Parts: sequence; C-alpha cells; structure tokens
Amino acid sequence: MNIISYPSRAEWADLLQRPVLPKGDIEARVQSILDAVREGGDEALLTLARQFDKFDGESLEISRTRIEASEELLAETLKKAIRQAGDNIRKFHETQRQPVEKIETVPGVTCWRKSVGIEKVGIYIPGGSAPLFSTVLMLAIPAQLAGCKEIILCTPSDHPAILYSAKITGVTRIFRIGGAQAIAALAYGTETIPRVYKIFGPGNQFVTNAKLMVAREGVAIDMPAGPSEVAIWADESAVPSFIAADLLSQAEHGPDSQVILVSTSREVISEVAAALSTQLEALPRKDIAHRAIGNSKAFLVDNGQDALDLINAYAPEHLILSIENAESVSEKVINAGSVFLGNYTPESCGDYASGTNHTLPTNGHARAYSGVSLDSFTKKITFQHITPAGLQLLGPTVEAMAEAETLTAHKRAVSIRLSTLN
Amino acid sequence: MNIISYPSRAEWADLLQRPVLPKGDIEARVQSILDAVREGGDEALLTLARQFDKFDGESLEISRTRIEASEELLAETLKKAIRQAGDNIRKFHETQRQPVEKIETVPGVTCWRKSVGIEKVGIYIPGGSAPLFSTVLMLAIPAQLAGCKEIILCTPSDHPAILYSAKITGVTRIFRIGGAQAIAALAYGTETIPRVYKIFGPGNQFVTNAKLMVAREGVAIDMPAGPSEVAIWADESAVPSFIAADLLSQAEHGPDSQVILVSTSREVISEVAAALSTQLEALPRKDIAHRAIGNSKAFLVDNGQDALDLINAYAPEHLILSIENAESVSEKVINAGSVFLGNYTPESCGDYASGTNHTLPTNGHARAYSGVSLDSFTKKITFQHITPAGLQLLGPTVEAMAEAETLTAHKRAVSIRLSTLN
Repeated sequence: MNIISYPSRAEWADLLQRPVLPKGDIEARVQSILDAVREGGDEALLTLARQFDKFDGESLEISRTRIEASEELLAETLKKAIRQAGDNIRKFHETQRQPVEKIETVPGVTCWRKSVGIEKVGIYIPGGSAPLFSTVLMLAIPAQLAGCKEIILCTPSDHPAILYSAKITGVTRIFRIGGAQAIAALAYGTETIPRVYKIFGPGNQFVTNAKLMVAREGVAIDMPAGPSEVAIWADESAVPSFIAADLLSQAEHGPDSQVILVSTSREVISEVAAALSTQLEALPRKDIAHRAIGNSKAFLVDNGQDALDLINAYAPEHLILSIENAESVSEKVINAGSVFLGNYTPESCGDYASGTNHTLPTNGHARAYSGVSLDSFTKKITFQHITPAGLQLLGPTVEAMAEAETLTAHKRAVSIRLSTLN
Repeated sequence: MNIISYPSRAEWADLLQRPVLPKGDIEARVQSILDAVREGGDEALLTLARQFDKFDGESLEISRTRIEASEELLAETLKKAIRQAGDNIRKFHETQRQPVEKIETVPGVTCWRKSVGIEKVGIYIPGGSAPLFSTVLMLAIPAQLAGCKEIILCTPSDHPAILYSAKITGVTRIFRIGGAQAIAALAYGTETIPRVYKIFGPGNQFVTNAKLMVAREGVAIDMPAGPSEVAIWADESAVPSFIAADLLSQAEHGPDSQVILVSTSREVISEVAAALSTQLEALPRKDIAHRAIGNSKAFLVDNGQDALDLINAYAPEHLILSIENAESVSEKVINAGSVFLGNYTPESCGDYASGTNHTLPTNGHARAYSGVSLDSFTKKITFQHITPAGLQLLGPTVEAMAEAETLTAHKRAVSIRLSTLN
C-alpha cells in the first residue's frame, strides 16, 4: 500500500481523486447498438446475442420449466444460504415502508402522500466469470415488496443460481441477453421483451454507458455506476488481519477497485500492510487484487477529526469503522453508502446476507445519492382534498401569490370557486 | 378543444403522445457554455451574465443587506401569503421524515438506515416574465428541513419576492446568474460560487439541457423536466366552469402546456368547452393559453375503468378528480405526480400554498419518478453492527454465497473472523 503520512487538508482533494476511466469511442459504439435494437427489435437482439454472447438458441426467453428446474441443479447448502439471505433482505427492506399519513395543513385542507410501486422494472445481471445471483436478491426483493407488477430480468448467464434466485423473488420473466443491447431492449421494448420504466443493475462500461444514455431519453435508472470501493478507519482496537481481509475482499472485485485505509496509528497501518501481503499471496484472484492494492492508499492522520473529515470528503461506497467508538462516530458520517461498525462486521456480510442492500453509490456519488432501497422501486404520489371552508381559508393566499407571479388563470381557478361560496 | 370520442385502446399511445421538442443544436451551444464556465470561472460567468442577462454590476452575489431590505419592498398581504404558504409547505414536508429504526435481521445482526441532508444543494429560479418565488419556497423549505448545510440560489432575477422567500427559508447565498451558465457554476464551482452536489429547479431549454448534461458527469439533479400538464377527469358532479378554469390555469404556463379532459359524459365535455371559450377571452395571457388549448384533447370514454386506465397510461403531472367517487378512485391511481380530489381543490392550491410540492414529474415521468420531497434533499445511509455470536449465525450463509460467486476474499473476510471464535 502507498502510505501517505499527515497530508495537509489542501492536498486531500488530489489524493482522494478517483481514477478517471478513458471514455474513448464507447459512446458511439453504444449508440449504434441502442439504435439497432430500437429499430430492429428482436431480430437485431438475436443477431447481437449471437455475435457477443455466443447465443445459439431461437428464443431469448428462458422458459418457466427451465427456471423451475434450476432448483434441482443447486446444492442444498447454497439454496438454504440464498433463502436465508433473501429473508434478511426482505426483513430489512420491509422496515422502509412509509405509512400514509393524512395531515390538515389548514382546517379543511388535507394532504397526504402514498408510495406506489413502479409498474414495470428491469434488472440487469452481468455474465462474466461469476454468476452474480446475490444482485438478483438485492434488486428483485425490494421490487417485489414495492408491488412492481412486471419485474423483467435480462442476463447473458443462465446459471442455475441466478434462475433460482429469480424464481424465489417473484421475477416475472427472464431473457438471456447481455450488454448494451439488453439495456436497449428494456428501455425501448421489442416484440418479446417488455419496455420498462426503470432499469437497475451493474455491468461493464457498455452497460453503464447505455444506462446513462437511455436515462437522458427519460428512462429512469438506479444510479450512475463506478468501480467498487471501501474506506476503513482502524485504530488500535482493530485486528490487522481482519482489516487486511476486508481490504482484499474489495480489491478482488477488479483492478480498478478503490481501497483506502485511514488511521491515527502508524503501527496499525504497518501491521495491516504486513497482513495484506501475506493474505494476498493465498488468493486465487491475487493478480486482480494485487493491481487494485497497487492503486490503494493508507492515510496516516493526526487525529480522529481529520480521519472523519477525510472520510466524509472521500464519500466512500462502503465504510468500515474498526474503532473503539464506532457507534458515536457513525452518527457523524455524512457521506457514505453503507457503514459497517466494529470488528465482527465485515463488508461481505452486507454484500450478501445481513439484510442491507449492496447496490450503493460509488465514485463519490454518496454525497447526493442513496443506495438502492424500497424507495427505488416506488414513486411517491401526493394527494389533496380541500373543503369549501378550507378553500375560504387558503384561497386568498393562493390568489395573492398567483397575482404576484402574474399567473391570472391560476388565481381565477380559486376566485371562481370562492365566488360561489360567498 | 379537440374532442376524441370513444378511442380504442390501441389508439391511446398515439393520442397521448407528448409533443416532441426539436433538439437542434442546443446541446452543442450548452456544451460550449459549460466548458467556458468550467475553465474560465467567475470571469467567464461575468461575461455571460453581461451578454445574456444585461448584468451591469461587479459582483454576482446579492448582498445580505439587499436580501434583508427585500422585506420593505413587498406589500404586507403578499408577505403574509408567502409566510402562510411556507408554513403549510413546512408542515407537509415535516411528515416525510423517517425515524431511524434498528432491526435485528438475525440475532446479533443489527441493521438500520438514516436520512442525512445533502451537504450542498443548488436551486435555480428562472427570470423571465414572472418572479417564481413560489418555487423558492418549494425547494428551499425541504432543503432546510433536511439539514442541507449550504443552500445556494442562482437566479437572473432580483425581484424582492424571490429575495424575501429565500430569506425566510434559510437560503445561504444568492447569486444573480441565469441560464446554462448558472447550472455550470453550481456543478463545477467558481472562485465565488460554491460547487454543489445536487441541482434543483425549473428553467428554459438551455437550463434543462445543462442539468441533464452535468447529471451525466455525476452531479445529481431533481428530475428531467418537460412542459407542465394537467389531466382532469370530470363527471356530472363536476362544475364545468371550475373545470374550464383549471384547464386554463395549466394552459397559461406556455404554448406547449398539456391539457387533457376525460369524461364519460358528452354533455360535461360540451359544457366545459363552452365555459373554456368564454373564460379564455378574459385572460391577460390569452394568446399563450389559446395555443396550449389548441393542442389539448378531450376524451369521451365508455366507462370509469377506461377513464382510469387512460389516465394511468398518460401518467399526468397533475390529476384533478372532479368525480363523485374521487376518494375511492384516487386509491387506484398508479401514475401521476399529484392528485387533486373534489370540486373545491383546484390545482393552483397545490401550486402555491396547500403544502404539497409543485415540482413534479412531467412528460410521463410520473411512471417512475416522484415529485420533489424531503427525500430529494437527503441521502439514506445504511448501517450495520454484527456481534461475534451474530457472525457465527450469519457467517456460513455469506461463505456459501461468496464461494458460489467465486469471490474468495469475500468469503475469507468472514472465515478469518470465525476462526478466532471457534
């Protein structure tokens, strides 16, 4: 790890800069895929699937029979784990429901707000080396709780763990399609794939660019994506080998993963660095992790306030507080996606099974964005009802303001009603 | 109004299509403004302000003295109206607070979620013919309630009603700058204007394009914008002159405003159309309203289910239910920004003073987006704490899932801890 001792606050911004990914011609390539699918529908999709995903079937939809059969292809231990994780995710996301509360702001003027599930949502799950079935749970469970009527899953993978996770979380239909073409299909719809109103899920640069590009056309997306990252604040109460393991669990995601350690103790940093070297050697993904660790930084800072301010300035996706006073410090965290307190709370528990969502804002977006939650799958509609007496109380206020904004018709919509009441 | 009788469901999509605005070269022009401000800072801003907004001062910031003095320039009636509206908006948005609820998903595994105000937010208020001080209330009040530390207002107008509204709602600083250059200043920061993490507010095509363009770069925005719109469902219990007044209050916003009437009664539609013609003539903004009404449509439908389905398919920003069973129908509304029930609840009450927010999803975005609320000014951070006993219960689940996803380091972050406990 690159150890930075006592950086001045003026240096923070530069030191905390995320790597900027080269854009190249990716937008133009994604645009041509979006256009092809919008215009060519299923036929274009099939051509692209054969070209990019070695697809050799006729129908992109994975049949109900195939989905049901996934159950028999998985070990009981894994199925049990998936179900337990699902139960915990369900429990935590259920606490996010907001009851309807009607309030009278003025006597006779009643206002309320109701959460309504987004009718049609799309979930993208990438293929690649690992079947990310945990992300199916993280997205489909809140969609199901929100009451979304159609939950459409697109993925180039047909791994049984993905199918099984989809099956137990109410996913409506699954299509075997990947990349920017999957995002195009969800955004525009084709003859067989329904158009959805909001698209969720991780992916490579083609996928994340396609999401941003359809978002500009009005399709909602979960959030802008970036490489995964963790910041860990460790003091003398931390166990260096645990911290090293947590840093590596982030580093194995990819060579562009961001890993940051903050401490007021030079000794803690050295011990973590030593443990890191040892553990790194034993990892199957050590090449990837090694490159990520190469970009990582350990900050030695003067005091707790500096550590806290540096973390809030960085706005990490994941924050681990391995410090004695983790609970009181956690109250002061302003910018972070998800926070893990204490020595026995590794990030991987939140990644899989404790109940919190693992789709979180990266790249400093935690300054303004929240992670995925039940909210992400609902719209909140406001309602109001005004009685004639209520309008008599409120109306003059509206008339005065509308007149000052020179919106006469707005004023008259009130006046014409008041005139029948006097 | 253009009356469409008993359209088939197959025709709905075409009939409900919003007008597509020509894009032209606006993106390129906005891009050059964004670049100029990012590179040139205050100097570029001053040049643009002189060019576009006839600005002739030296400092873009409106002084505290000037803001304080706004109070003396306004009539007491208007100030009282602004304060009453502010109180109602505050009351309604306060009900949107979500208390922190800690839950144990597994014994020893505690998860919770906390709303934290976005530290720095920007509000844009356009200049133009009318001083939109009501939008200051609608954006600054929830920002203040959310605990945003810096609330930066940019506007080309220095109308005292805007300054007064900003003063009583905790706006931190006000800069007299408009257009895409204001959005650039808020997104990138300049020597005097602080960079913010999220930008809110309406504007012309330059402003709304600039917002979408900085959003692609990672600055959060409230929502994509479009022309304002209302759909009204009226039955025999409606008062045609009230409905006509409501349609006109939307139509006066601009020639591209969308106005839709739905009814099962041909007579209601005729009566509304007649009242509309009469009232239109008396409006100061009759030219604008006349053009908007020219694009508007009245749908005569077979039955209540068709009316409801048509409205949900349209996904209006505002929906007025002037029908006998408004309350029970309102339960079935899936896609709308804000809903107004009954004969004495004109949309203009929600536009100004009842307490609900008037920044709402247009252009069909109500299918996936909510209006602005307290949520819009907060991020929700999740937290978790796991005891050693909790990790012993949850750990094996995480290990099984991480192994199946071939993320060995994720698994080991758990195993290394469990090994110290056995």
